[in-house]
Amino acid sequence: MEGDKKAAAAMAEEVVEQKTKEVAAAGDVSLKELSKKLNDFAKERDWEQYHSPRNLLLAMIAEVGELSELFMWKGEVRKGLADWDEAEKEHLGEELSDVLLYLIRLSDMCGVDLGDAATRKIVKNAVKYPAPSKEGA
Amino acid sequence: MEGDKKAAAAMAEEVVEQKTKEVAAAGDVSLKELSKKLNDFAKERDWEQYHSPRNLLLAMIAEVGELSELFMWKGEVRKGLADWDEAEKEHLGEELSDVLLYLIRLSDMCGVDLGDAATRKIVKNAVKYPAPSKEGA
Amino acid sequence: MEGDKKAAAAMAEEVVEQKTKEVAAAGDVSLKELSKKLNDFAKERDWEQYHSPRNLLLAMIAEVGELSELFMWKGEVRKGLADWDEAEKEHLGEELSDVLLYLIRLSDMCGVDLGDAATRKIVKNAVKYPAPSKEGA
Amino acid sequence: MEGDKKAAAAMAEEVVEQKTKEVAAAGDVSLKELSKKLNDFAKERDWEQYHSPRNLLLAMIAEVGELSELFMWKGEVRKGLADWDEAEKEHLGEELSDVLLYLIRLSDMCGVDLGDAATRKIVKNAVKYPAPSKEGA
Repeated sequence: MEGDKKAAAAMAEEVVEQKTKEVAAAGDVSLKELSKKLNDFAKERDWEQYHSPRNLLLAMIAEVGELSELFMWKGEVRKGLADWDEAEKEHLGEELSDVLLYLIRLSDMCGVDLGDAATRKIVKNAVKYPAPSKEGA
Repeated sequence: MEGDKKAAAAMAEEVVEQKTKEVAAAGDVSLKELSKKLNDFAKERDWEQYHSPRNLLLAMIAEVGELSELFMWKGEVRKGLADWDEAEKEHLGEELSDVLLYLIRLSDMCGVDLGDAATRKIVKNAVKYPAPSKEGA
Repeated sequence: MEGDKKAAAAMAEEVVEQKTKEVAAAGDVSLKELSKKLNDFAKERDWEQYHSPRNLLLAMIAEVGELSELFMWKGEVRKGLADWDEAEKEHLGEELSDVLLYLIRLSDMCGVDLGDAATRKIVKNAVKYPAPSKEGA
Repeated sequence: MEGDKKAAAAMAEEVVEQKTKEVAAAGDVSLKELSKKLNDFAKERDWEQYHSPRNLLLAMIAEVGELSELFMWKGEVRKGLADWDEAEKEHLGEELSDVLLYLIRLSDMCGVDLGDAATRKIVKNAVKYPAPSKEGA
């Protein structure tokens, strides 16, 4: 009995820990969550018929163009965009999002698991470009 | 005591459910996780110096070009890429990933929370393009 | 004196021939003519200060995005655009032009003679991809 | 007679001026000449079948990507590319050309007279952005 109580306490602790993680992760959206939202969005509007791979690729490129427009006459732009005003930053967030959303949708329509592919690409890059040793000269 | 056992069982069930979700979610990477990996990657190689916004934007556009190369002579491509061979699909996954990784890094270097911006963009799009009512004719 | 008259007649003939060629060539604009127009345009507006290579490259990419927008939801498009209406074709001509004009300006600001480079590239391509022999089976 | 001599001299001067212009224009290729070369090139290799508008657009975008690759890690690039070596400049000329050649071919396959459209676009831009008056303060 005492054992049961201890086990219950341990489990409860684990659950709480998990919930804490989840709360911390609020706002940390996953690629699959976005993919699901986009899928529902297209379905509800009967837009799946337009979502062929090349249509989506060109739509993404159109958004890359709008993103470039925000940077085109600025000369070199410093990290953090200290001298951009709030409206510009808001606009930038929208254009970056538009590229992302079409990229996710394009991946889905091609049957590519983008999160999985990206994770593997980072590993591949790490092998291709080994980090310099942190020890020694 | 009986109550303790019940509570323990309920908690255990919840934990199992949670773990199941986690296992199901394996491979469901979040934007913040990818962002963190990219940040570590750049830091370890002392590449942060090259990651100005316009450098990253042009690097992303170079990858969009490589992605386009996979689609350029194919005429219309059907969803699911039934007639692409495995090597092509693998290559496609890498190019889609390259675009994603530079997009995430660009967002970070601009101080934009991409996951948050994308989530808000979907909401904005839903307002802009309301779904047709599901009831009635 | 008779000689002078003959020389004058010959010269006159040559001039006429030349003018005829020019008239025939009306509408056949050269890259250098466009380049000159763009140079004057920028000078008159004091816009040369904005025309750094990367600014112009991003401006060109923005136009490539607008061009892609015209093609993005159309599925495969047939040569000659038989089913596009006049307004769309007009718009297409403008977007193609915008890409061209920034491309010429970018080349100029980089000190590249685009017409010369393009002519040489065609020759290089012909060497790389030899035409199949026109004789024999 | 005196009049004939004067006319002959005037004509001769005009011819010389014209020839000088032509010599200066050597290497001054027109868009129609490039278009014709590309048309012959495709015909000789039986490549016309691949030259649908969207195929050519994506091929052009692939070349825009290669062009961006040359500029991506350089930070701001100064006009004239003083610090680029000859091999890089040669490479740049090729990438700029590749974009141009696909742009011309795309225009042709869409039935757009690119030189004509570009000339009209410059006029339209001049109306849209009037040059400041050259006189007065």
